[in-house]
Amino acid sequence: MENKQIKNESITSRSEDFAQWYTDICKKAELMDYTSAKGFIIYRPYGYAIWEEIQNYLNKRFKATGHHNVYLPTVIPESLFNKEKEHVAGFAPETLICTIGGQSELEDRLIVRPTSEVLFCEHYAKVISSYRDLPKLYNQWCSVVRWEKTTRPFLRGAEFLWQEGHTMHETEEEARTEALQMLEIYDDLGRDVLAIPFSKGRKTEKEKFAGALETYSIEALMPDGKALQSGTTHYFGNGFAKAFGVQFQGRDGKLANPHQTSWGVSTRLIGAIIMVHGDDNGLVLPPYVAPTQVVVIPVAANKPGVIPAARELAKNLEKTGLRISLDESDKSAGWKFSEYEMKGVPIRVEIGPRDIENGVATVVKRNDGTKASVKLEELNDYILNLVKVIHKEMYDKALKYLLEHTTEAHSIEELKDIVDNKGGYAKMMWCEDQACENKIKELTNATARCIPFNQIPFDDVCPCCGKKAKKVVLFAKAY
Amino acid sequence: MENKQIKNESITSRSEDFAQWYTDICKKAELMDYTSAKGFIIYRPYGYAIWEEIQNYLNKRFKATGHHNVYLPTVIPESLFNKEKEHVAGFAPETLICTIGGQSELEDRLIVRPTSEVLFCEHYAKVISSYRDLPKLYNQWCSVVRWEKTTRPFLRGAEFLWQEGHTMHETEEEARTEALQMLEIYDDLGRDVLAIPFSKGRKTEKEKFAGALETYSIEALMPDGKALQSGTTHYFGNGFAKAFGVQFQGRDGKLANPHQTSWGVSTRLIGAIIMVHGDDNGLVLPPYVAPTQVVVIPVAANKPGVIPAARELAKNLEKTGLRISLDESDKSAGWKFSEYEMKGVPIRVEIGPRDIENGVATVVKRNDGTKASVKLEELNDYILNLVKVIHKEMYDKALKYLLEHTTEAHSIEELKDIVDNKGGYAKMMWCEDQACENKIKELTNATARCIPFNQIPFDDVCPCCGKKAKKVVLFAKAY
Repeated sequence: MENKQIKNESITSRSEDFAQWYTDICKKAELMDYTSAKGFIIYRPYGYAIWEEIQNYLNKRFKATGHHNVYLPTVIPESLFNKEKEHVAGFAPETLICTIGGQSELEDRLIVRPTSEVLFCEHYAKVISSYRDLPKLYNQWCSVVRWEKTTRPFLRGAEFLWQEGHTMHETEEEARTEALQMLEIYDDLGRDVLAIPFSKGRKTEKEKFAGALETYSIEALMPDGKALQSGTTHYFGNGFAKAFGVQFQGRDGKLANPHQTSWGVSTRLIGAIIMVHGDDNGLVLPPYVAPTQVVVIPVAANKPGVIPAARELAKNLEKTGLRISLDESDKSAGWKFSEYEMKGVPIRVEIGPRDIENGVATVVKRNDGTKASVKLEELNDYILNLVKVIHKEMYDKALKYLLEHTTEAHSIEELKDIVDNKGGYAKMMWCEDQACENKIKELTNATARCIPFNQIPFDDVCPCCGKKAKKVVLFAKAY
Repeated sequence: MENKQIKNESITSRSEDFAQWYTDICKKAELMDYTSAKGFIIYRPYGYAIWEEIQNYLNKRFKATGHHNVYLPTVIPESLFNKEKEHVAGFAPETLICTIGGQSELEDRLIVRPTSEVLFCEHYAKVISSYRDLPKLYNQWCSVVRWEKTTRPFLRGAEFLWQEGHTMHETEEEARTEALQMLEIYDDLGRDVLAIPFSKGRKTEKEKFAGALETYSIEALMPDGKALQSGTTHYFGNGFAKAFGVQFQGRDGKLANPHQTSWGVSTRLIGAIIMVHGDDNGLVLPPYVAPTQVVVIPVAANKPGVIPAARELAKNLEKTGLRISLDESDKSAGWKFSEYEMKGVPIRVEIGPRDIENGVATVVKRNDGTKASVKLEELNDYILNLVKVIHKEMYDKALKYLLEHTTEAHSIEELKDIVDNKGGYAKMMWCEDQACENKIKELTNATARCIPFNQIPFDDVCPCCGKKAKKVVLFAKAY
């Protein structure tokens, strides 16, 4: 059945101005608000609740894989921060620095943490002395500050919420396995919770995290054709451990430096959800991450019996264990339809006098607007199944877009045409020479998003230099 | 049966040096660690897990009473912070200030949040315009920074973890009710989860929070005779709302300023748990907040059948839904006994060859060291009941101490004797004149902890000035 949704006139359409559409949703769906601290945002209840669902899923997965939550200081002494050169170079330009404490000038200035590798290393140096102390598998939920010049809600901000895992291992192999394992958990989050298909792979040398030997990432493709780096995991080798004096007595009795990883996802994922799934009526939330999964709306609520029937229906729906909400405020049903469409609630259940007469409720899917009339006694089972259906439909739609916008580029001109006009990934065979990567960026503004794990070579030479091609790389413009 | 626990020699005894005993536990039970950022600590996995249990309980209670979690910036522009004079005066001396961002001097310096009233007000001014928008019931889990000169783990630190609720209401009555309701929830946390009896009451004018019209608090009594303020709730009236331009159109069509509350508890509660319940063998955790509630320890683990029996027992115990852990490491049983005593695990289940022969396990209570031999088929029910028993015993013991250390003072000399020698609360009739409160502090170093809700007058005059007494007050030395 066709969608009869009332068009919400208050947001810009995606085709008209994608960036403005995005910002409109952030505000109108009440996900965030700006503050007088430039670049710093407020995570409003509805936005924060999405983050809490992401936290719930990840906390379970992290704990099931042996990780423990901890909390480390919000500031890092500058002297400590400066101990690892490459790392400092990567973050120094965008740090926020405290110079005054208790009305006195600080001798050792304090950097508001942009990431916590050095703090974890300092602590690990104290608590690790034997191979028996390994692995150490810690995670922290917190905010970090990076002094960005241009900011956009959830995508790039002076402060964002994230989790940062920091682990220490006896062997290189174990640490590398950890970095890959955590990437798989992020990928599962995308597939099973956010309904977002990620492209998984390794970062090029140029795109690696400051100080890491290896960076892996999950990349999501946005409907404007740009890629969004959505999570990264890093293998550090033992460089940080050496710099910070983290060492342990091995099984052979000799002292060694442990091998380190770190990994994180952030509230940027909320930006990915908005862009991948949203439409011109507002947010479209994947059901497993939606703060409200089903909203019950009485129609012609002033007619006798409607409110009681809506209450009974909502109460009964609670038995599904889903997150149900009932809106019995005195606003019109039409107003409510628009409102919950804007907020992206996956399922709307309407009940009015005619529904009551027929012993049914009207069920509307947010993702495609289709309606169905469902017998009340079958409603709970229907809704429970519908959640799965909607999740799959949303994932499949995003996957279709991803596949349709991953295009082989056999020349730099083709690559440029793909990223400029068609949008999405230009898949290219690459010689692994950074000069070609630089040249591509210069000519097309596209960057190497990742060297996907799934390597299916399709050309012999790098189209940039004509030398032997070694790797399939996904190039795209990126957020 | 008598306690046969092996004395852990590595911590100072309580009677020898209470402060050192406290610090020893913080370190040896692996609750926290120091960092090179002076006054900032690391919440290690075991300490943080206790905080997570507190969060789980409070989040449920907060959500059931209609509150929503949000996240506001970690920094406050100095210009915004300076908008409410009394508040500024209260916090300015202990702020940490950022002056450099992205390598440039900041025009408007940023204060690392010591508390977030002003940020909430700024946001509320934007999202409240009608009585229909009220109440706004927001809570935030975060850390705050206060530049303290002398710090002690969990009790007073440059940074601590807390929750801060900030609400806006249509009427004074509703806001006052909210402040009292949240105090009740904190009190429930003490009684039902932490096994700590709190004294509830109102703060005197002198002891109120900066900018509040009314401050309520829960106070816990420590075994060294000092009180620990463990949580506060505040009624602000509409002073902040006026200063920040928060207003709404009321039911009468007129503009008005909403009435505000804020309320918070912090990781200071971990300090309370340590002091109230701990003993010379280490931490003693109340069962509902213990990260591990039952530890299973194989005895003579190298004997055939012991490890498999311990595993089966532990697996079976999982069915209780309690947090169970099995230690099958190669350390000696005696070492493990000491270790889990230090960590305060409420119940230890030992299983050795003789137990297996008799179809029993040995159950040891951490709180009093008593042992029992329990048939394996009855073990789960026994343990489930034991959790309740232990909680009640721990609460009752703390309550007994509290009652025994609450003493009527009929003169300043008596008050001084109580707080100096006996320890605990000196309960005194007070004229409500701040001059007397100041004098008492000067003479005895005791402060008015609270004016308890439960008022049972026992004298006619204030022993300090001889004027008519109006209120029963609890005086004590405090952390």
